[in-house]
Amino acid sequence: MQHFSDRLAAAIRARRSVVCVGLDPVLERMPPALVAKYRPQAAELGEDEAVAACFQEFCSGIIDAVAGFAACAKPQAAFFEQYGAAGWRALGAVIRCAHEHELPVILDVKRGDIASTGAAYGRAAFGGAPGFAAPVAGLAADALTASPYLGDDSLEPLVAHCADGKGVFVLTRTSNPGAALLQEREVEGQPLYVCVAELVARLGAAHMGDAGYSDVGAVVGATSPASLRLVREALPHAFLLVPGYGAQGAGADALADVAAGGAAGFVVNASRSIIYAWQTETAEYRRAAAGAAESMRNDLASAL
Amino acid sequence: MQHFSDRLAAAIRARRSVVCVGLDPVLERMPPALVAKYRPQAAELGEDEAVAACFQEFCSGIIDAVAGFAACAKPQAAFFEQYGAAGWRALGAVIRCAHEHELPVILDVKRGDIASTGAAYGRAAFGGAPGFAAPVAGLAADALTASPYLGDDSLEPLVAHCADGKGVFVLTRTSNPGAALLQEREVEGQPLYVCVAELVARLGAAHMGDAGYSDVGAVVGATSPASLRLVREALPHAFLLVPGYGAQGAGADALADVAAGGAAGFVVNASRSIIYAWQTETAEYRRAAAGAAESMRNDLASAL
Repeated sequence: MQHFSDRLAAAIRARRSVVCVGLDPVLERMPPALVAKYRPQAAELGEDEAVAACFQEFCSGIIDAVAGFAACAKPQAAFFEQYGAAGWRALGAVIRCAHEHELPVILDVKRGDIASTGAAYGRAAFGGAPGFAAPVAGLAADALTASPYLGDDSLEPLVAHCADGKGVFVLTRTSNPGAALLQEREVEGQPLYVCVAELVARLGAAHMGDAGYSDVGAVVGATSPASLRLVREALPHAFLLVPGYGAQGAGADALADVAAGGAAGFVVNASRSIIYAWQTETAEYRRAAAGAAESMRNDLASAL
Repeated sequence: MQHFSDRLAAAIRARRSVVCVGLDPVLERMPPALVAKYRPQAAELGEDEAVAACFQEFCSGIIDAVAGFAACAKPQAAFFEQYGAAGWRALGAVIRCAHEHELPVILDVKRGDIASTGAAYGRAAFGGAPGFAAPVAGLAADALTASPYLGDDSLEPLVAHCADGKGVFVLTRTSNPGAALLQEREVEGQPLYVCVAELVARLGAAHMGDAGYSDVGAVVGATSPASLRLVREALPHAFLLVPGYGAQGAGADALADVAAGGAAGFVVNASRSIIYAWQTETAEYRRAAAGAAESMRNDLASAL
């Protein structure tokens, strides 16, 4: 089984891109043509099914458009979950679409729970829940995001999937304004998020791919270049998943500093600036997304 | 709109019980009669649908049996999510069943994300996702569990639902062995989880019910009586959701200390010791669950 980190490194090199396209579909920003197509279906199928079908077509269209410029895709589970079973089914279809384009999928779920519950979250994302006669496929994501607050025994059931070619990105230093409240607290002379980075290093040591990266990475916002550097010091061989580029803050310069290895060692997420580029560019949504992804790739090319 | 905390206080007083029944269905512990009924359906409906239907009947049976002895029910989303859309639908049906028995439902999802994503998680649990013509109902839970690692701006979109009669339990000091790794770290002379408890107090102050409790509570394991007392000091008016009773550790004595107000101010979760009592008692599963819930209620009666 190929390591997740090797698949991600290969995708970065093949596309010459560290762009991670975040799929955060919201109804109020769907293109008018899709709204016109799916709105009439709500009365017949139900609101949940109609919106989920709209999201599925939208996200599949985005994936088709950006696949040549992106290293990976990151669907955000929350936006699908709010449409219940229909949303969950659409999320599965979006992941399959990404795989048809050979894009690794990081499922953004920020899960974290202990023992058998943690294991069940792993199986929801990656597959393998027990059935009567055969296991269930699950969402078949390549990696997921995980929250560290419950400690190492909440991350271990997820990290166990690395042996099956999967990856885990642990929330370490996030890009939101409230992140500092706990993550920047000083613990034995260093910020709490550095303790988390050290935990990530420990968990990832047993899961190194051939390209020199671990299958266990860290989520670190681009909004604080100092945090990025500290996390990189603690994690010289981890992939960093970096949100907060563009709209939220930092540019390409802050990132060049944290490049590591032959495939840059990080991916940079952008969601709204790519998938809703049609609203600022007033172009067809797929063409606008492709243009935004391509220019973001070029901005970040110096990292490679 | 009645406060969540008032509904929970009323349920505690009506049942004279602080028992929270955790619904953690796993296939390998389903009673033989249910397995015999649903196993043949797997070939026709698919493994996911057959297992989800089995879980739905099992959990509904448990709810019927324990409703007279329990203050609330706590379905664990992970066990349903691993069966995809079918599992999500079964989870919704289980929540509706609890509501038919007037049991408040705490959805155990441990979510936490920022801004619009956090809001989407809130709508997944509580309802209100936008549709083309009308909002979507969501799972219609009464409360959810939330993770604090991302800080206050990740909890605020969830706490906002308290104005609509909902509740939030923030992970504060959990009962698992790995919890200490971050939660017990010393920050400015006190453990990190006390910082979280202070955050819970701050977020909950604006959402006080008529019974004297806030709609924003805390998850605190029974495994460490010292932590329970520290959290109670920081949160004199919050409901505590206490896992780790019975199988995992502490007994009723440790809890009497942290009672607060006219409805005890806490609920104690037990999952496996109630729902799988049939395996140790070799009785019909519903009768065994009712017996286990009743005796747990009686053990904890001194708190009321």
